[in-house]
Amino acid sequence: MATDWKVGRIAIVGVGLIGGSLARALKAADAVAEVVGVGRNELNLQRAHELGVIDRFATDIETGVDGADIVVIATPVGTMRELCARIGPVLGSDSVVTDVGSVKRAPAEAARAALGDSFARFVPGHPVAGTEKSGVEASFAELYRQRTVILTPESETDPAAVRLITDMWYVTGARVTTMSIGEHDRILATTSHLPHMLAFALVDFVAGSKDADAHFELAAGGFYDFTRIASSDPVMWRDISLANADELGAKLRQFADHLQQVTRAVEGGDGEWLQRAFGNARRARTDALAQREHCDSEK
Amino acid sequence: MATDWKVGRIAIVGVGLIGGSLARALKAADAVAEVVGVGRNELNLQRAHELGVIDRFATDIETGVDGADIVVIATPVGTMRELCARIGPVLGSDSVVTDVGSVKRAPAEAARAALGDSFARFVPGHPVAGTEKSGVEASFAELYRQRTVILTPESETDPAAVRLITDMWYVTGARVTTMSIGEHDRILATTSHLPHMLAFALVDFVAGSKDADAHFELAAGGFYDFTRIASSDPVMWRDISLANADELGAKLRQFADHLQQVTRAVEGGDGEWLQRAFGNARRARTDALAQREHCDSEK
Repeated sequence: MATDWKVGRIAIVGVGLIGGSLARALKAADAVAEVVGVGRNELNLQRAHELGVIDRFATDIETGVDGADIVVIATPVGTMRELCARIGPVLGSDSVVTDVGSVKRAPAEAARAALGDSFARFVPGHPVAGTEKSGVEASFAELYRQRTVILTPESETDPAAVRLITDMWYVTGARVTTMSIGEHDRILATTSHLPHMLAFALVDFVAGSKDADAHFELAAGGFYDFTRIASSDPVMWRDISLANADELGAKLRQFADHLQQVTRAVEGGDGEWLQRAFGNARRARTDALAQREHCDSEK
Repeated sequence: MATDWKVGRIAIVGVGLIGGSLARALKAADAVAEVVGVGRNELNLQRAHELGVIDRFATDIETGVDGADIVVIATPVGTMRELCARIGPVLGSDSVVTDVGSVKRAPAEAARAALGDSFARFVPGHPVAGTEKSGVEASFAELYRQRTVILTPESETDPAAVRLITDMWYVTGARVTTMSIGEHDRILATTSHLPHMLAFALVDFVAGSKDADAHFELAAGGFYDFTRIASSDPVMWRDISLANADELGAKLRQFADHLQQVTRAVEGGDGEWLQRAFGNARRARTDALAQREHCDSEK
């Protein structure tokens, strides 16, 4: 971890849970001289300032990113095209831009189109962390500790820019891994986007029952754990679903086929099949958790 | 709560998480003179005895239930028919039998067939509580505190027997509600059995990916919360799925239709539909949780 890493000015576009937590972590480590919050909602920025998350703010993006060593775009992925188009012309020649989107292809394409030559200084990023809460009030400095941040540099990406963003995330306590955009969007479609669709769909399904109140009342803790992610921000998830529609659509269809096998086993009374499938799931999850804890303890 | 409630002997058939936690709660409240553990696995019963969960044990069910005021059947629901057939002939004329199965129709029918006239003293029950862990080692006295226990008495069921089992559960700190078997199995199919199928199926789906390790490694906390229930006991869930196959099969098919709508919206780029669906889900879950906490605080 680069404990003596320090940067001058960071502009955070979108000061919510993700952007706010990054700002808090960098400030807690005394790793940044000034954090500028940028956004359209002045009340939110004032609140972030009151909370000490940012040092000053701008509602005008051109003003906000001026002179920033690092610009972090932490808004829903659907805003990338417009934001990059505005940032491109005013971006300092040494500034590095990164984002935190849960999808990487569409934002990177938007950035490439808008940033021109500066695209070499755009480092697509995704901290695999979060809670179902949103907004700066929910932000906290420890959000990224022992979590994984994925960077997906393209062939044009300047290695020095990747190094800078890697070091920034190290300061927050995260581990950083790099992979291709294609691999990222394919894997996250399964491990994150698909479960979110299932959770949202299940709550909607229950809410649409004719005695929905009785259903929610009789639901056990498992149901509320299962659907925790259905309390995530709807706009953010609309944008993610649409930005990764190809991969997510394919995974939804494959999962539907898998679920149909389960349905057939239930209806056909195939206890052997069910027990084997449930047992495989339990074993796989237990092994994955053990591996995860092993890695955490080695940090 | 019946704080001065006390019973002489309780036989618990199947001393695992559910049976063991009930025993612990009753003992902690000094509400039972003797708890007899009954099961096939003598090592498990010895362990339960060492842990102080039971006072003595029997591997022979006829011996185990002899002289018990209450017999609690806490084994996977697939065992009900055989157990009731063995309990029926030796059941004391004042003994009351209850179970804890997550499905109610099939166990109640098994009990009706096996118990004959004694079926009037069988109170079908379901504590809507649990963790993904199993076994007596995982049991704890507080498991049922502020949780709901559903009783589904039939027309033949003796009201005094229902009263006895209600009071027993009150001692554990649970709230007790009654409903019909049909309503129970229909609602729980949606709020419990369906989410378990989705969680098991999702973990199996991920485990079947060609780079499953990378998937599990990159999964965020949300994934592990979502799939916590996939670590539940495979035999227990095989039995539940089969015992509630009609309701569960119907819900699986309805949910698949609902998921297909989501898939079409994702693939068709219908952001408006997705945002509305996700927003509805978030609102419904938030409201349900608020209602739940309100009820808890009123206890």
